[in-house]
Amino acid sequence: MQSDDLAVRAAAAERWDNLTKPPGSLGRLEELVIEYAAMRGETMPGIERRSIYVFCGDHGVTAEGVSAWPSEVTAHMVRNFLRGGAAVSVLGRQLGIDVVVVDAGVAADPIAGTLDRRVRRGTANFAVEPAMTRAEAEMAIAHGRALAAEANAQIAGLGEMGIGNTTAASALVAVFTGLAPAECIGTGAGVDAAGLARKQSVVERALALHRPVGADPIGALAAVGGLEIAMMAGFVMGCAARRLPVMVDGFITTAAVLAAIAMEPAVRGNLLFAHCSAEKAHRAVLGYLQARPLLDLSMRLGEGSGAALGIGLLTQAVGLYRDMATFADLR
Amino acid sequence: MQSDDLAVRAAAAERWDNLTKPPGSLGRLEELVIEYAAMRGETMPGIERRSIYVFCGDHGVTAEGVSAWPSEVTAHMVRNFLRGGAAVSVLGRQLGIDVVVVDAGVAADPIAGTLDRRVRRGTANFAVEPAMTRAEAEMAIAHGRALAAEANAQIAGLGEMGIGNTTAASALVAVFTGLAPAECIGTGAGVDAAGLARKQSVVERALALHRPVGADPIGALAAVGGLEIAMMAGFVMGCAARRLPVMVDGFITTAAVLAAIAMEPAVRGNLLFAHCSAEKAHRAVLGYLQARPLLDLSMRLGEGSGAALGIGLLTQAVGLYRDMATFADLR
Repeated sequence: MQSDDLAVRAAAAERWDNLTKPPGSLGRLEELVIEYAAMRGETMPGIERRSIYVFCGDHGVTAEGVSAWPSEVTAHMVRNFLRGGAAVSVLGRQLGIDVVVVDAGVAADPIAGTLDRRVRRGTANFAVEPAMTRAEAEMAIAHGRALAAEANAQIAGLGEMGIGNTTAASALVAVFTGLAPAECIGTGAGVDAAGLARKQSVVERALALHRPVGADPIGALAAVGGLEIAMMAGFVMGCAARRLPVMVDGFITTAAVLAAIAMEPAVRGNLLFAHCSAEKAHRAVLGYLQARPLLDLSMRLGEGSGAALGIGLLTQAVGLYRDMATFADLR
Repeated sequence: MQSDDLAVRAAAAERWDNLTKPPGSLGRLEELVIEYAAMRGETMPGIERRSIYVFCGDHGVTAEGVSAWPSEVTAHMVRNFLRGGAAVSVLGRQLGIDVVVVDAGVAADPIAGTLDRRVRRGTANFAVEPAMTRAEAEMAIAHGRALAAEANAQIAGLGEMGIGNTTAASALVAVFTGLAPAECIGTGAGVDAAGLARKQSVVERALALHRPVGADPIGALAAVGGLEIAMMAGFVMGCAARRLPVMVDGFITTAAVLAAIAMEPAVRGNLLFAHCSAEKAHRAVLGYLQARPLLDLSMRLGEGSGAALGIGLLTQAVGLYRDMATFADLR
């Protein structure tokens, strides 16, 4: 925290106390705006320009039967984002949030309408070889940083799509938090009990094979990560560098955040957490990060759908902060 | 539940499963829309017309020093609602929700711009005499029912303003739930420890003096209630009678709901609960009602501010339900 952040926090807290309500009575909404103002470094932050970046990529590990859905669904969903039929598209329209679709490495021909930052067509199967090379992980991170630098937004939501990516996220969570693999595995987009067992076995084998460690986050991303996950990690660092606050979504985006924090611990102070998802390990990881999510609605869709709702609440909170009358106005 | 509700529920659940997402992955949002559709009796319910009714009234019990704020603040806040400077006003503008201000019995001259349904200028001090006569309680309930019958809305939020009304609500909660008075008392709009002790003493004395019982809800409202609380109880019953779902706000609106349920148990099925407030007993009362609130943001402002956020989430959930692509669309 910079010293000017302390001044912004104090000024924002004072403004809340001057608004026509009992002090503190808007609860978490007051704290949220104080955090946001401090992140922006502005006592009266705006929130007119809101974007969700949906990072998309495919995963070779789907060959191990870890997902209820075939890899082709990733490309189908990318087209659905672009046509406006996906959950995050609908929420974006309703809430006035731009949805930016980034192709970090979908295993299909390029899809018009995405930001094409594809590093390769999907990762390799990390159960048997590294998901990508170190150079590819670095390229994905660099693309993410550059996207953040170019973003025209005051708040950026994180979203993702990639069949198989809860498996990669579970492996990364095990690496960065030290939780046992079994604790990091959940049903993702709806895998059955046999699939869940395969998922756990794959993560355990991959960790034994590649021996990724939290002290080498780029190596961990290359070994068991995903293209969209590495790009999100870069994006999160790029946002922090320019004080563009990030609204984190669910389990997979949180895994990307863990990698970003491992590289640059200061990014933690630039993050807001939208929700606790129903994916098994998400609550534990939020606890590890000492993060208090705004919502707890048992969602487990990804795409940035939770981040959209979180940005909606933030927008409403900033609106209250900016537009409510003060006690002086009442006289 | 009517048999056609079961058909609506089944059809709504089937629609959710046809949308482009893993089944159940929107969690509580899916359940919320299924509830709402069943309440409306429509498989594709609309949610274009949204209103929050803010019921306002004063409380003679403020003479006992139970509030951090003087009674005059009620009228000040009514003017603030009308001028658009209060929290619920700002949220209403942001979310496209009409805010209807009902004067159920403010202790001031009538204020232009309210719906004037004032039964009397504030209640009597229920620490020493009944808050109102039985006929007055019945009149407040009748006004509430009539307002519901005339409402031009598909979802109605409950809101309230009345200095002293957490004391009345605490007494009613003790009557209807059987919780000990000490368990029903909280700091309301910010009373100090001495005020809190006075509040508990007042509630205990009033319950001993009037001996209100849950089996006579009108008598309980007359003895220790409030004009705005009785009118909300009538409004809740009137909404249920025409299948206009109600989004409940915080502790005081929940006390009104308890009275309505005591009169007409079937209204329970027409209620959605926006949030768990920071007012001490609210969580316990929600548990008593087996209600699962959407939000838990430590808010304790009233006015319908939590209901506004809840209606926002409901609107977004219905939008997802109506506007997302189906798997058939993807082909």
